[in-house]
This record gives sequence, structure tokens and C-alpha cells, in this order.
Amino acid sequence: MAAKKMVDQKLPQIPGIRLAAVPAKIKNWQRDDLLLIAIDEGAAVSATFTQNTFCAAPVTVAKEHIRGGHIRALLINAGNANAATGERGLRDARACCVAVADALHIEEQQVLPFSTGVIGEHLPLQKLLDAIPTAAGQLQADGWNTASRAIMTTDTRAKAASRTVKIAGEQISIVGIAKGAGMIQPNMATMLAYVATDAAIAQPLLDELVREAVAASFNRISVDGDTSTNDACVLIASSATGPQIDDLKSAEYALLKAAITEVHIELAQAIVKDGEGATKFVTVQVNGAASSAEAMRVAFEIGESPLVKTALYASDPNWGRLVMAIGNAGVEGLDTEKVDIFLNDIQVVEAGGRASDYTEEAGQKVFTEAEFTITVELGRGGCSEHIWTCDFSHEYVTINAEYRT
Amino acid sequence: MAAKKMVDQKLPQIPGIRLAAVPAKIKNWQRDDLLLIAIDEGAAVSATFTQNTFCAAPVTVAKEHIRGGHIRALLINAGNANAATGERGLRDARACCVAVADALHIEEQQVLPFSTGVIGEHLPLQKLLDAIPTAAGQLQADGWNTASRAIMTTDTRAKAASRTVKIAGEQISIVGIAKGAGMIQPNMATMLAYVATDAAIAQPLLDELVREAVAASFNRISVDGDTSTNDACVLIASSATGPQIDDLKSAEYALLKAAITEVHIELAQAIVKDGEGATKFVTVQVNGAASSAEAMRVAFEIGESPLVKTALYASDPNWGRLVMAIGNAGVEGLDTEKVDIFLNDIQVVEAGGRASDYTEEAGQKVFTEAEFTITVELGRGGCSEHIWTCDFSHEYVTINAEYRT
Repeated sequence: MAAKKMVDQKLPQIPGIRLAAVPAKIKNWQRDDLLLIAIDEGAAVSATFTQNTFCAAPVTVAKEHIRGGHIRALLINAGNANAATGERGLRDARACCVAVADALHIEEQQVLPFSTGVIGEHLPLQKLLDAIPTAAGQLQADGWNTASRAIMTTDTRAKAASRTVKIAGEQISIVGIAKGAGMIQPNMATMLAYVATDAAIAQPLLDELVREAVAASFNRISVDGDTSTNDACVLIASSATGPQIDDLKSAEYALLKAAITEVHIELAQAIVKDGEGATKFVTVQVNGAASSAEAMRVAFEIGESPLVKTALYASDPNWGRLVMAIGNAGVEGLDTEKVDIFLNDIQVVEAGGRASDYTEEAGQKVFTEAEFTITVELGRGGCSEHIWTCDFSHEYVTINAEYRT
Repeated sequence: MAAKKMVDQKLPQIPGIRLAAVPAKIKNWQRDDLLLIAIDEGAAVSATFTQNTFCAAPVTVAKEHIRGGHIRALLINAGNANAATGERGLRDARACCVAVADALHIEEQQVLPFSTGVIGEHLPLQKLLDAIPTAAGQLQADGWNTASRAIMTTDTRAKAASRTVKIAGEQISIVGIAKGAGMIQPNMATMLAYVATDAAIAQPLLDELVREAVAASFNRISVDGDTSTNDACVLIASSATGPQIDDLKSAEYALLKAAITEVHIELAQAIVKDGEGATKFVTVQVNGAASSAEAMRVAFEIGESPLVKTALYASDPNWGRLVMAIGNAGVEGLDTEKVDIFLNDIQVVEAGGRASDYTEEAGQKVFTEAEFTITVELGRGGCSEHIWTCDFSHEYVTINAEYRT
């Protein structure tokens, strides 16, 4: 997308959470590349992790530690993914947790480690061990913008979002940061997201909330259809403010969930907009499906098709490719004569064929916009779903072909 | 791939089959674009069709007609797919069959129609109806090279292959032609293949043979992972020569199957080599899988990953992307520490991590070759499978972004 400036957002502090970003020189660069997040006692922490079987060492360790509960710190490094690194990779990740635990006087099992960067190279462990005490000495509540920059890799801009919401008369804050510029590109664009609130919420409700918020946000985006070895999304509730929320059906839960989900969606959309080489941001909306799963399948078949994505790049309303993608989604018994397609409010396909009053000029006008919506009506049932995608450009090939050179 | 010259191959005639290609001016071009294949009585014909739900009108009609048996003619046009054309598309396809039936004095139901070209536009029916009698008057046995050119769309070279095999002392010939330059690109690069032999073989055996030959060839290739609305592969046995083959376990069936499968594979590989913008031809071999399905899943996950394909284009042995793709294949319970990867005979991954004596230079040397093999050992069982793929280049984006302009 056009201009990608590093303008700091006004982000709230989250009582009970402090951060520090430091330069550990993990790569040969001059920037912060190690982020420490410290969480006061009494917080609830939930997370979702990559489904990739070849998950990285820090993911294995983080999954193990979070099962024990009582998480007190997160450590995130950029520049090295510590993935496909075998037993030594696991030892390195654990050594980092021990160093954080020593610096913060907590247990090793209370630390979650995260890494993003090159696959297949060992962590420069000593550099991390040297930098961890420095970070621990610099923790402060006002650090989210700095933090959002420290976790970047191929991102062209930092990603952060925030909301405030009044619950039972008290103002609750939510702030989130994320990185990722391909849905993944395994060497450098893992998707990582950290969202924090000072609300007080029971652990089972937070687990449910992160699951639903991720389903509504990060699980609806596609840049290149691949999934990283290191993806993770963490949601922290510090419990510093407001009433304890422990009823899934309460108004308080609904309010908190809505605000937290908005932060997730804003971060997810920011990743697509910063997609490698992306020039278009497109919502694919599928209505009239027999099930949600079916609607999602059709939406992703469109949003991930290289042929659709190159047509988006060319601003070419090549609706034959939309029809082809729908036909490839494996919708059993689809009656193609019930399928309608709209580009914003312009109907391009009517009853499976070209709409009678569609003109190429009208379609072209929509496709030249930087943001628009493709809506598919399947005419099979009452289920709707949507995803967000971007185009496939020469720049994408250049970035990914020349990445290591 | 480098030079793409139109050199006629020496292709045998198939007794019992005659062909004619004529210019019907379906688009504004000067070339043959309509192919008629006439089959003598007594032949067996089998076919496989696209799985795309949005299948084209001619596919619907061809599926209906082949169920009746006794097929006597195929009509193939380039320049217009007759897809997403509703009721009128079906009427047009049937009208073409009637015209062929009239010209050859056979039944409408004995004609199989095929179309490839732009989606969503109606056939220029009168042009086809005018050209069909001309084609019928020019049928001859020696026409396979001309035929292979008449069905081309975005192909940069015609695709044909042949074999001869001695069965029970008699020389049997097999010739095949194909078109397609993306696994599909729906507007112009449908995959079509027509293979003919003068062998005599019972219909159920031919049905089995085409299924197996397609599984060993066209179902193992990927250019962009999409599937056309118009794909079809037809196998004709004219029964003009040799003994009647009616035992699946006979040596005669095995000989014929081997030769026919070779023709299918050569055509399938020719499609990948002519892949849009392709500069590399890569075999992905997966061994040690628990099942064939699992091996195919891993192979396609590698062969269709945009990140792997851009690395192939860049001649960059970025093995982290191979590891990522394997992890994304959904192999339940994969022990990543048993995974080995080879680039030709160079081991790059050993026990899930970088092989101890691997050097970037050795990997680079393999990746700069125009053709090479990536072998994955999963260490789970005894099943092996392979596919053929190509790289993802700037040229692919250019071809597909600028196709309609």
C-alpha cells in the first residue's frame, strides 16, 4: 500500500503490564530486536499458536509453559526464528526463559518465549542472555509503540491498535501490537500479535475470548496462503481494573469481547494492508451458504487464487476467475445458476452468467479502487462469512525471490 | 523455458481415426481454431473431466453423451470456453454436436464437444456451424501435428507425444496431443488432452486405464494450483489393430497401459515445462509416507507454495520454505526429527535440521539447474509419490495480470 510512515499512535498504558525493547544485535543491524513484556501477578494469559507441524522451538516451549498457568513474562526476539533447530533449539529457548526468570525473580515456567526471523539457524544465545538483564532494568508502562517496532521483520510499518471501553462504570483499556507482512513467509514474516487489557477476567473466559477474537480476525486474512512455523497470538488480562468478569453471558463479557475483537481485527487488517507487495485491500464476502465452513471455503478459494490475485493487481475485473474459484471450492451440489457476484454494488454475475446490465467500465471502476468488496451470493442457505485479502504483484515475486540475496 | 520452437514431431497415424483442423475465426486471428476428430465404428472411448463445479456447457454435454457409449466424433474449439453461459451455452454446444452429426451421418449423442478460451462469452455459433462441414470434408489420418496447434491458447508450443509397442506380434501405435500452460488459467489455459491408439480394448479396461494414466500424469502437475472449468482428457482406442484386450491381468493390458501412460506423462510434463512464465522444471519426490495420500499432500504443499515457487525462480535453496511447506501439509503426528530433505543427491536437511555437511554453495548449484529433484524422506512408512511443478516468476504475474489488456 502507498505511504508507510512510522507515526507513533497514541496508545494507552495497561496497568499491571510493563515493557522494554533493547538492541541485542541478533542480526547485523542497528535497532531494537528484543522485547520483554512483564506482567504483574494475578493476570490471566491465553494464546493461540501455529498449526504448522514443523513448529519452532519457542512455540513448543511456550505451549508447555502456558499449560501451567501464572504467566509473568513474554520474551520476543526478531531476526532469528529458532525453527528447525532440533534439541539445541529447545535448549536455547529454555535458557532464555531461565535468564528472564532470574532477572525478574519468577519461575522459568512463567515465561513464554517467541522468535521470528530466519529458519534453520541457531539463536545467538549469548547475545540474548546479555541483553535480557538490560531489558529487565528498563521496564516501563509506556512502551507499546517502541515494542511494536522491535518485533518487525519484513514489515514496512509498525502495527498497533487500541480501544477503551466502560465496564461497570470503570474505563478499561486494550492495546495490541502485531507483526507480519505475509500470512507468513517462513523466514521473516511470522505473524505475531500481543494484545493486553487491564480488565479482570476468569481464565476460561479469556481462553474462549482469544479463540473467538482470532477466528474473527487473524484466521480471516490471506497474503500468500502459507502458515508460518512461529505464528502466535497472545491475549493478556492484567486484572488491574474493573470488576471480575466470570460469566460468559454477562453484559460485561460482551462489552469486553467486542472491544478486544475490534483490536484484533484492526491488527489483522493492518497485516493484509502491509502484505508483501500489496497494492489492494479486498474484502471477500460470501452470503447464502449452507454452512459457515462452506462460506469460508469459497471466500478463501477466491482470496488465495493466484489468478484472482493477479487480476486484482492488474485492476482487471476478470470475473471468469471468480467463477472458476467458486467452482473449485468443493461445494457439493452447487447450483451454478443461483450464483450472483457483486463488485461493491455492481452486479457482474447473475444466475451464473454475465449480468445483463453489467458493463466492463463499471467493473473496471471498482477494481481500480485501493479498497473494495467482492460479494458472492450462493443461494443455498443463510450462512455468511468474509475474509480480507490483497493482490499478487511483481513486487511480491521480487521480495520473495530476492529475499536472501 | 528457453527456446519454444514449433518443430513438427514424427507422429504415427492411428488406423480408424481421422482429423481435420480449420480456421473458424472464433477470435480475430489467422489460424486453425476448430479441430474435428472422427472415429470409425467399433472404437472404445473413455474420458475424465474437470472437478470444477462451475463446469462449462460442453463438459456437461460431453459427460451426458459419453454415458451412452458409441462415440464417433470429437469437436474442439479454441478461443471461447462456452463457460458461465447458462442455458444458451448448453443449446450452443448441442447445436455444434448436431452439425457434426449431420456432416458425418452419425447421431448427435455420438459427438463429444470441447471448448477452451474466454469464460462468460457466448460461442460465435454461426462461425462454428459454417466451419464444421468444411472440416468434415478434410478429414485425414495424417493430422496430429496440425491438430496439436489448433487447440493451443496461451501455450507457447504445441504438445504431442507418441509411442509404439508390440503386442502379440502386432505393432500398436499411440499418439497424444495436449494443450494448457497453467494447470489452468480459466480464461485461456484449460488443460485438454486427446490420446488415441489403434489397439482393441474392452470399454471397462479402457475406463480403468484412463483413470490410472491420468492419476500418473495430469493429476501430478501444478502450475498455479487452480483447476479450470473446461479440463478434459480423452482416450480413444480405435480397435483397428491387434488382439482384443479384455483381461486386466494380461500381459497385453500391462504392455498397452505402460505405453499409454508414458504418452500421458510426456504430455503432462510438457504442460509444466510450458507453464506460464516457468523457468524451472522440478520433480518433488516424497518417500517414507504412511500413505500415498499423505505423500501426495506433502508433495503438492511444496509444489504449490508461492514461497517455494518464488525461491525456485530465484535459484535460492531456501530450505526453510521446504520445511514450512511440509509442516503445513497436515501430517498428523509428524516427527519432524525424522525428516530428511535432498536437493538432487545433496542432503540439506537431516533429522529436521540443517544437515551437518550441507553447504549453501552445494544447494545453490542444484537450484541453478533448469531441472532437478527435491526429495523428502518423512520416516513414517513405505509409501512414495511424486509430482512435477515449476517456478513462479515475474513473467507469471505479467501474463496473468495483463492477459485481457
